[in-house]
Amino acid sequence: MKNIDGTSLIKQFSLDEFKSALGNEFNMFACVHKIKSMGQFAFVMLRTGRYVIQSVYEPETCSDDIDSIKEGCYINVSGTVREEPRANYGFELLLSGFSLLSTPAEEYPLHVSARKLGCSMEANLKYRSAALRNPNERAAFKISEGVCEGFRRFMLANNFTEIHTPKIVAAGAEGGANIFKLKYFGEDAYLAQSPQFYKQTCVAIFDRVFEIDPVYRAEKHNTTRHLNEYTGLDFEMGFINDMYDVMAMETAMLKYIFAFLGENYQNELNITGAKLPVFDEIPSVTFLEAIEIVGGNKNKHDLDPQDEVKLCEYFAKEKGSEFVFITHFPSLKRPFYVMDNKEDPRVAESFDLLFRGLEITTGGQRIHDYNEQVGKMKRMNMNPEEFESYLQIHKYGMPPHGGLGIGLERIVMKLLDLPNIRQASLFPRDINHLEP
Amino acid sequence: MKNIDGTSLIKQFSLDEFKSALGNEFNMFACVHKIKSMGQFAFVMLRTGRYVIQSVYEPETCSDDIDSIKEGCYINVSGTVREEPRANYGFELLLSGFSLLSTPAEEYPLHVSARKLGCSMEANLKYRSAALRNPNERAAFKISEGVCEGFRRFMLANNFTEIHTPKIVAAGAEGGANIFKLKYFGEDAYLAQSPQFYKQTCVAIFDRVFEIDPVYRAEKHNTTRHLNEYTGLDFEMGFINDMYDVMAMETAMLKYIFAFLGENYQNELNITGAKLPVFDEIPSVTFLEAIEIVGGNKNKHDLDPQDEVKLCEYFAKEKGSEFVFITHFPSLKRPFYVMDNKEDPRVAESFDLLFRGLEITTGGQRIHDYNEQVGKMKRMNMNPEEFESYLQIHKYGMPPHGGLGIGLERIVMKLLDLPNIRQASLFPRDINHLEP
Repeated sequence: MKNIDGTSLIKQFSLDEFKSALGNEFNMFACVHKIKSMGQFAFVMLRTGRYVIQSVYEPETCSDDIDSIKEGCYINVSGTVREEPRANYGFELLLSGFSLLSTPAEEYPLHVSARKLGCSMEANLKYRSAALRNPNERAAFKISEGVCEGFRRFMLANNFTEIHTPKIVAAGAEGGANIFKLKYFGEDAYLAQSPQFYKQTCVAIFDRVFEIDPVYRAEKHNTTRHLNEYTGLDFEMGFINDMYDVMAMETAMLKYIFAFLGENYQNELNITGAKLPVFDEIPSVTFLEAIEIVGGNKNKHDLDPQDEVKLCEYFAKEKGSEFVFITHFPSLKRPFYVMDNKEDPRVAESFDLLFRGLEITTGGQRIHDYNEQVGKMKRMNMNPEEFESYLQIHKYGMPPHGGLGIGLERIVMKLLDLPNIRQASLFPRDINHLEP
Repeated sequence: MKNIDGTSLIKQFSLDEFKSALGNEFNMFACVHKIKSMGQFAFVMLRTGRYVIQSVYEPETCSDDIDSIKEGCYINVSGTVREEPRANYGFELLLSGFSLLSTPAEEYPLHVSARKLGCSMEANLKYRSAALRNPNERAAFKISEGVCEGFRRFMLANNFTEIHTPKIVAAGAEGGANIFKLKYFGEDAYLAQSPQFYKQTCVAIFDRVFEIDPVYRAEKHNTTRHLNEYTGLDFEMGFINDMYDVMAMETAMLKYIFAFLGENYQNELNITGAKLPVFDEIPSVTFLEAIEIVGGNKNKHDLDPQDEVKLCEYFAKEKGSEFVFITHFPSLKRPFYVMDNKEDPRVAESFDLLFRGLEITTGGQRIHDYNEQVGKMKRMNMNPEEFESYLQIHKYGMPPHGGLGIGLERIVMKLLDLPNIRQASLFPRDINHLEP
């Protein structure tokens, strides 16, 4: 019998520890990212989970032979830390020795050590495991981590409870045909288009809830801005006066997230050259005002992608804002759970948030009264009996409430100015890709 | 046009603010949890997202009529905070007025305000939206939140990167028939049994990764300890010497989680009467030693539920430990990616962790060498070509690595001593329940 006490954990590379070892011996694990022979000596670029550290191999100071390693090998190295202003982080390692942990069977099929990968999206996805080792490609996912963590910290600090709700469901929440079907022990089931029903249910339990979980849309679009499986950042909150309370919460949350990224992810912001948006407030216009701004047809029921781009260009130029809220969409195009405007039921208490030309959020106030919800379903020719389980929440009582959903990959795509949303998804699912 | 600046957010009940308003006016949103008439006055129990606060209604001090509200109503109330040692948190609110926000269409079908719900699991699930409003039932999900948050904080502090990987996959990672199938744009696809392939892929990218996401098992078991959709806490780490490094990481992580719960979730620990495990180290025995302890048949290839209970009873009694690691399971019963023991390939570098009679973790060291992995697949009569995409990670190089998966609902079930794992899942999916 052994005892495991958890006190001696495998040490992980730390940039701070590396720098503060100046003049001293330092030991680290790494992947051989690149070897650049300079004749008398060589640069061995060491890739850790987050950084690329420059090391210098000189035959006279290193006890091991550089010919025993190659790019893609995983090694443990020792050396002396010294200042070098031209190195990535101002310091480099003069190698004294290394030991080989593993050797790849083949060379990388892509230019993993290039500053930018520079291959087609198709090649990038085909060799995804290699592509993501490129420091610029992987940086997007540290930024994703930061967006999630910033979102979570803001939510928890504001007394939202984190929930996890099922993705195998009996009915789609958002309507339409873009839903994946499966058999669940003989029953027809679907993959959740959103956690809508469940997060509303949880408002009656916890007042305020949030969820970070996958969301499924069986859309056949093959565009640079659609994924069939994405990560949804959702929240739902009780006791609101109107949807503007939800929009205020989102505004405060976004400010927090960007401050959090600025504080903790400067390394990745530098690698990718990303610029964080800076703002005090977000302008908000109605759908009709938006249509007027883009000079569109007043009989339209929704904004198309070009409208979103035009609107963002307008608000960037006129108001210096990279964000804009669009409110009061036509009720016709919004799901059955959305509250209609009391004065003009043709418009919904519903909003989108656009960021740098792209819709990143849909949200609004929901119906909380049982009779109002049943009445709206009947007007929409829906059968309330099919939603008996969902309607329990209204039947047993709900506070006035609202919420929203954010697409994680969309916000990261726009933060990093990525040409394709697939670069913001580790293993993107689209109409052509079920692998990797 | 409006501007949304996010500075005035809807105020949420805070226990600290409530207490420190002693002697002063206090305003809060709540659900009327219970009204207890005492003749001359009444207790109105106010349920917030986390607490139940006692308030007192007296006709002479309150400007509104108590007959205008009933259980299940959502209200905004004002009153004066005063000390009352017999109240839940030592303070109560003497009501001065309230306004009604919403009224339920029907009374609760369950005893929501009882200390324990006291209905069958079937009734609990049928009226899930009501059941979860019971303070004891909902407490389990604050504990779930705490386990996730503790896990995440520990992981991030130890330089693990948070990832989100697809749940629609081309092949199951864990083998066997317990996998949900679906059509993905005409292709055969499955719901992920674990993020195994993807978290291994990400070790080559980030060195250390973790994921909190749903996991699917199409098992037809209808037991108190199985769910068909559950939340997996997974991590995977590079540069290990052997699986004991993974076990040490788990031990340290569990200590952190329980300390985190103790610090932040005392309210729910009190409500549920849960006892946190206290330990310095976790005993670890081999599968063969475990079989000997339970007096089982040496030709067994796995532990059955009774063995797990017996082993935990033994280690609780003999070593005072509520946890025990079981290592070196027969290779035969472990998936193809598991590393076999170098001296005795009949046993795997693989472990389970048992907690209070139940397996909560499976983990181990994985194969990182391409030829070793292809060789093992061939010996197991698998076709490596079908795993071409996965095998890229070995082909282009991987450090020695290992990891584990924890079932969130199982750890919560055991922490709270719940008789049924369904009480640890907000909306449980089992062979009979696709709703709510």
